[in-house]
Amino acid sequence: MAAKPRRGDNPGELVFTALGGIGEIGMNLYLYGLGPEHQRRWLMVDLGITFPGEQEPGVDVVLPDPTFIAERRGDLDGILLTHAHEDHFGAVVDLWPRLQAPIYATPFTAALLRAKLAERPGLDLPIREIALGSRLQIGAFDVELVTVAHSIPEPNAVVIRTPLGLIVHTADWKIDADPITGAPTDEKKLRALGEEGVAVMICDSTNALREGVSPSEQAVGASIAEVIKSAKGRVAVTTFASNIARIRSVADAARAAGRELVIVGRAMHRMIEAAKETGYLPQGFRYHDQDAFSHFDRRQVLALCTGSQGEPRAALARIAAREHPAVSLGAGDLVIFSSRTIPGNEKSVGRLLNGLADQGIQTITDADRLVHVTGHPRRGELKQIYEWCRPQTLIPMHGEPRHLEEHARYGRSLGIPNVVRMRNGDIVRLLPGPPELVDKAPVGRLFRDGSLIVPDEDGPVRLRRKLAFVGLVAVSVVLERNGEIAADPEVALDGIPFETASGMAMEDKVLDAVEGALESIPRARRKDPALVRDAISRAARSAVNEAWGKRPICKVLVTVL
Amino acid sequence: MAAKPRRGDNPGELVFTALGGIGEIGMNLYLYGLGPEHQRRWLMVDLGITFPGEQEPGVDVVLPDPTFIAERRGDLDGILLTHAHEDHFGAVVDLWPRLQAPIYATPFTAALLRAKLAERPGLDLPIREIALGSRLQIGAFDVELVTVAHSIPEPNAVVIRTPLGLIVHTADWKIDADPITGAPTDEKKLRALGEEGVAVMICDSTNALREGVSPSEQAVGASIAEVIKSAKGRVAVTTFASNIARIRSVADAARAAGRELVIVGRAMHRMIEAAKETGYLPQGFRYHDQDAFSHFDRRQVLALCTGSQGEPRAALARIAAREHPAVSLGAGDLVIFSSRTIPGNEKSVGRLLNGLADQGIQTITDADRLVHVTGHPRRGELKQIYEWCRPQTLIPMHGEPRHLEEHARYGRSLGIPNVVRMRNGDIVRLLPGPPELVDKAPVGRLFRDGSLIVPDEDGPVRLRRKLAFVGLVAVSVVLERNGEIAADPEVALDGIPFETASGMAMEDKVLDAVEGALESIPRARRKDPALVRDAISRAARSAVNEAWGKRPICKVLVTVL
Repeated sequence: MAAKPRRGDNPGELVFTALGGIGEIGMNLYLYGLGPEHQRRWLMVDLGITFPGEQEPGVDVVLPDPTFIAERRGDLDGILLTHAHEDHFGAVVDLWPRLQAPIYATPFTAALLRAKLAERPGLDLPIREIALGSRLQIGAFDVELVTVAHSIPEPNAVVIRTPLGLIVHTADWKIDADPITGAPTDEKKLRALGEEGVAVMICDSTNALREGVSPSEQAVGASIAEVIKSAKGRVAVTTFASNIARIRSVADAARAAGRELVIVGRAMHRMIEAAKETGYLPQGFRYHDQDAFSHFDRRQVLALCTGSQGEPRAALARIAAREHPAVSLGAGDLVIFSSRTIPGNEKSVGRLLNGLADQGIQTITDADRLVHVTGHPRRGELKQIYEWCRPQTLIPMHGEPRHLEEHARYGRSLGIPNVVRMRNGDIVRLLPGPPELVDKAPVGRLFRDGSLIVPDEDGPVRLRRKLAFVGLVAVSVVLERNGEIAADPEVALDGIPFETASGMAMEDKVLDAVEGALESIPRARRKDPALVRDAISRAARSAVNEAWGKRPICKVLVTVL
Repeated sequence: MAAKPRRGDNPGELVFTALGGIGEIGMNLYLYGLGPEHQRRWLMVDLGITFPGEQEPGVDVVLPDPTFIAERRGDLDGILLTHAHEDHFGAVVDLWPRLQAPIYATPFTAALLRAKLAERPGLDLPIREIALGSRLQIGAFDVELVTVAHSIPEPNAVVIRTPLGLIVHTADWKIDADPITGAPTDEKKLRALGEEGVAVMICDSTNALREGVSPSEQAVGASIAEVIKSAKGRVAVTTFASNIARIRSVADAARAAGRELVIVGRAMHRMIEAAKETGYLPQGFRYHDQDAFSHFDRRQVLALCTGSQGEPRAALARIAAREHPAVSLGAGDLVIFSSRTIPGNEKSVGRLLNGLADQGIQTITDADRLVHVTGHPRRGELKQIYEWCRPQTLIPMHGEPRHLEEHARYGRSLGIPNVVRMRNGDIVRLLPGPPELVDKAPVGRLFRDGSLIVPDEDGPVRLRRKLAFVGLVAVSVVLERNGEIAADPEVALDGIPFETASGMAMEDKVLDAVEGALESIPRARRKDPALVRDAISRAARSAVNEAWGKRPICKVLVTVL
């Protein structure tokens, strides 16, 4: 079953690296390189983003720095997307111009990618739609998809067959006998791969700390239906818009409880349309737009909303703040969080729960009832897939270090012969085995900051972080060519306390210091603007520091007449 | 048992408000007002801080705005501190100058307050040390302390007896038959108060969402001892420095396992000294300083560290980053998090766990074993205290809205006749009953920002938050008195991408726009600096927006020769 080497090919070796996704959850970008080093071909699996945190003010999304593969883009045979979660395909639109390779995706993923492209006029991507479970050649790579279960339609594991051996790259998966949308994880094919011989398995670590197996999507649906059935007032449910199975469960539960389904939030509409287009929701899937909400009796309506993470501009946050134009809830109503709180969002979700509680609205989260389930394998599921596939080597991916380390420990405890602990940027020779670290690829992060892509290292975001801590003083100094002071300096402060402890205006204090410093420079030396800038900056920062205990950024503008 | 009204006193009414602590966890500041409105006397209970989040860059601590009581400070009889957690006494040093009232505290709390004062030369506070369980008159207020259990030595509930009735203010508490330091919650006195008649109970809501009763400190100690006993390498334990009972348990566990105790972190040293001074640790409590750590065999050492919240400068974060001067851990060693992650700190604690995992260091948290317990009452404990005290009225305090609302619901379900839902700033007449909202006090937050106390509203921190999102452009323009342009403008950018999408320097783009705008103003109108500033600012911000999609802050410095 191994791929036939092309004429004249030297199978060389198969190497693997991650520019994102090993050592973090989010921003997945994996690379397989096949052939001898001087004629190596590359396959990219996934190209995702992650979301910024408090350390990245003003940033919309965080992207993996693709420099390593962008420098080799002539050797990149394709970009294969396993599924349509943002952390797996969210960077395609921003980074494809640097890569220019064909993109392979199954129909639902392709539909969502096209929907994104519609918002970027002028960018046209070569999307090759491929069938679930199909086997195809992507340049040098003999690739096969394996259907798995996850929390979005069409999650795929990837098999790469090389003359040197066979790799299984699981991407995001779980075992679910009844995932509602799509087929269950393809046990038969995974067992057959075990028979064929799996050299290396590169596997999802997200839930490696959790014992047992995750409940099925079907069980969650049943539990949500029960909760909704016993609700007495209005009901709102928030979930991840891409979880079409969950949307279907909620719609069914609404119908069973005699409630009309109202969809609130743009992302939810977009996803539902993509799901109808690709058959994951029936063409006749009926729902109302948000404007209908207020027309229904409180016991006959259910709103399905975006905003489970407390995003301030999403539907639910606006409902909680009583600022939503169409939907309002009140005492005795119920909000079901059919979601988990993504780490880092605890405070914004807390604000949301508090806003709802303030209005006497009851909330149910996955801490109270089975209203959400993970899309990633717990230890019981990991054990199962290793029994099916019997890999010679395991590489834990898709996890923070603590998940990777625990996954590695667990893999060893299950008797997997080689377990490789690697991190983003490590280039590991997978085959011929045993695996070995052979090189390092540069890794880093880029930010989408406004409409531009900027670097993390030495970029504007770090400067803004500094501004956020210390503020800024701008000073203007006007000198004659001979060094005479032509006018009084001007200063402007931003983000600095307005007064000192004694009540003096901080601006006056800075101005005094600047004037003093300027006058104390001998006239002849004032002919050197760099020296002036430096002396003024030191004086201004010291003056603020004396009053405030912090040294601001200082920009000195020197004009020589 | 009611307090004797002083001659000529009109008992008037008893009112209650919170300037912090009702609607949030942290920043507790409660006020009781007794007497008719025109001659009302005030008692403050607690004066705490909270810690800043991502919305408050550069802020050290967040303080309640005391304006309401500061304006009445002549009528403030005293400040009673229930215990020495920062959210209950952390604002005393910063805010006392605005209040100037005597401070009442039990010995351990007083010792820690004196330790803080030692770091603020020139500030001398009138601290009145009072005994545990004592009854005393604070101005118009007949006050009695009731010993409770919590996660620090000397937690006190407060009884206020007035001619109108009796109030129990629980502060932070739990029921613990064996709290290790100090006596258990004083059931006998609480039952006696029930007999005497409790008009109003103002009670801790932190764990009102959690069923059951919390385990005892003793059980946690035993579990920690077991974990330490079976450890094979070096062991580090991190906990809150003020949890002296826990420190004692860890010290005992170390001794039992044949390990030497090493204390790492300044806060831990300071707390241990205060505990020895006040008898909560024996005078002979022996430990090593951090420099000893490396001298001991890996199986014979235990480091007790600060930094359980991932604080970057605390001991544990520096150990995880391999930057600690005295303590290093490695593969096979163990770190026990005898702590909980305070909401908002999930990311920094995650970084810490990941940093340790990266080095092959095992971690145990309260998700894995009973190595920490809350200091607040769960529902079973709330039920218990209401059975003991049988209050006529319950006011849930110390909680976010969702905790307060659930506590209110639970109180009603237990048959408490009146349950009052109030928030910070609501002034509620407690007695004569039934309770009623009678007025509003202004509330807000102050920040310790560097060495200054600044307001939240209209203060520098909001300006810096804006800077963090959009950056800043500074422009200098030099004009003759007649409006002629005397020199080319100068610009400086900070926190803005360096290049446009087409590769042009952003600074050049701004300079072009500024020059164009300046020239387009008729010379006569350039005599108006406000007009010039406005036109230049609009031009600079538009130019950046065109290239970046964001409008920066702009400071225009106009010099007229």
